[in-house]
Amino acid sequence: MTMKKFINSVDTFLEDSLRGFAAAHADLVELHTAPTFLSRRHRKSGKVALISGGGSGHEPLHIGFIGPGMLDGACPGQVFTSPTPDQMLRAGETLECGAGVLFIVKNYSGDVMNFEMASELADFENATVLVEDDVALPGSSSTGRRGVMGTVIVEKVLGALAEEGADLGTLLEAGRHLHPRMASMGVAITSCTVPAAGRPTFVLAENEIEVGVGIHGEPGRRRDVLRPAAELVQELMDALLEELSPAPGAEVLLIVNGMGATPLAELYVLFGEASQVLERLGLRLERSLVGNYTTALDMAGASITLCLLDAEIKRAWDAPVHTSALRWGR
Amino acid sequence: MTMKKFINSVDTFLEDSLRGFAAAHADLVELHTAPTFLSRRHRKSGKVALISGGGSGHEPLHIGFIGPGMLDGACPGQVFTSPTPDQMLRAGETLECGAGVLFIVKNYSGDVMNFEMASELADFENATVLVEDDVALPGSSSTGRRGVMGTVIVEKVLGALAEEGADLGTLLEAGRHLHPRMASMGVAITSCTVPAAGRPTFVLAENEIEVGVGIHGEPGRRRDVLRPAAELVQELMDALLEELSPAPGAEVLLIVNGMGATPLAELYVLFGEASQVLERLGLRLERSLVGNYTTALDMAGASITLCLLDAEIKRAWDAPVHTSALRWGR
Repeated sequence: MTMKKFINSVDTFLEDSLRGFAAAHADLVELHTAPTFLSRRHRKSGKVALISGGGSGHEPLHIGFIGPGMLDGACPGQVFTSPTPDQMLRAGETLECGAGVLFIVKNYSGDVMNFEMASELADFENATVLVEDDVALPGSSSTGRRGVMGTVIVEKVLGALAEEGADLGTLLEAGRHLHPRMASMGVAITSCTVPAAGRPTFVLAENEIEVGVGIHGEPGRRRDVLRPAAELVQELMDALLEELSPAPGAEVLLIVNGMGATPLAELYVLFGEASQVLERLGLRLERSLVGNYTTALDMAGASITLCLLDAEIKRAWDAPVHTSALRWGR
Repeated sequence: MTMKKFINSVDTFLEDSLRGFAAAHADLVELHTAPTFLSRRHRKSGKVALISGGGSGHEPLHIGFIGPGMLDGACPGQVFTSPTPDQMLRAGETLECGAGVLFIVKNYSGDVMNFEMASELADFENATVLVEDDVALPGSSSTGRRGVMGTVIVEKVLGALAEEGADLGTLLEAGRHLHPRMASMGVAITSCTVPAAGRPTFVLAENEIEVGVGIHGEPGRRRDVLRPAAELVQELMDALLEELSPAPGAEVLLIVNGMGATPLAELYVLFGEASQVLERLGLRLERSLVGNYTTALDMAGASITLCLLDAEIKRAWDAPVHTSALRWGR
């Protein structure tokens, strides 16, 4: 089977894509090579530098969230492959400006290991926030849960606080406050195809879905047959609500995230069902986001994220942001 | 073959999707039923009401462009099916507030006919801007060209002018000024599947692409084999540049639009190649947009749009906009 993608070659895919990204958003970002990282063009001195990174193939995560109010830099690895410590080190050295560096890391072993190595080798003050919001699988005590769409909430909320001048300790505390308040879970109706592999990562039968799929095509809770959107959403929402146990009347941020190949019209079908689940339970939909934010290449699928809001999270979420993928208030 | 989509049923797809859209963006829009249309929640009195519409399946077009600085209302038809005149009439009656209504219509026979009927039956003053930016096929003198991604430019530019108080005549003039300055062309690597049909609209062989595809899966210029992104982009850009004949040093807006199932990372590959074509020709990339804006359900494909800028178009493009799909300056 031929792999159908808009690429020049498998070998130059990442480089070509990053070059296009930098050309499209030259007002916001700068692309650095050898080692590869992207930096925010107009930096603010004296603030903690927020740097994230991870394997490519999840765009706009993380590069699309560079800019005022979110990230100062991002280190993209090859597709679904962790970036190497030299990328994080160089990004940190370039972006640190007196208040230290906060690394925002999704919980995957390669990412964790390589960010840790960078953290240890760094001459600059740094700390790390680990994101692990995927409730699909029970995390063992040693590995924890996978980091998925909650990463965008962490980058937005901590990005707002850093922009206002919060120090490293305050940002770590905000991360600890945020984490137990958010949960995500996804479902795939097709696999993705990693360019270098040239064939689908996994195979689903004609009417089959993967409930709880990971953003690299990792197995979820189970295979199932495709069911009406309302039933799928109910199952995902049950898992999220069981995890979060919101009090009656709680205010929530509801996100329906596309995995890359799911049309917006279908994401809105899912959002409509999820918002009705909230309504039936007396929970208050206060903020929402619908679109492709944490993707898995060309996977058709979607994830739902719930975040329990309070005044501080809401204020940080609403704060001005100017990135290529999220922009408001300026 | 089973159709894999996140829907409850084929019959309720549009209704469910619109309900989800209205729930996600309750701060921006209101959903009206019987007949169906969406309106801007916070209206500005005394301005020309901008109303667009067309078949669904192209989201975020048009509903995602309702809000301050763009549309006042949109009339979605069933998937790939024109809205009916009663929708446009009711939307116009609801939204007209003293300065008349401007209908923005993509050039498809059903849309043209039904908007014309609404225009004739209307008790309110109204005028129509027809969008026909697709250069894939030579338009006959009677039917003209298809309207595609250029529609978003028309809605943004005329939306900004209307927000500033431009009258109907000024908006028509701005539309006439804009039209010869923009051109679009697309390419598909997979078909889309209309829910009610349950099977792909057309069939491409494993390595085949449709060059010049329409946003409903209409045939383009020809079938070809999948080639490197740089070659595909060169062919699309050649067609656009032949149409527009930009002067050396001309300032352009470059848009790479995804058809629904193409990952952002691939759209950036295309953007990178297109920006290099501009650079080689000494054209100036002044504004850019990359993402899914005028889609064709779950088609994997992309289109490129070029718009020659001048001070007035640039100013209107940059003006504040607050819609679910485009937002800046507020």
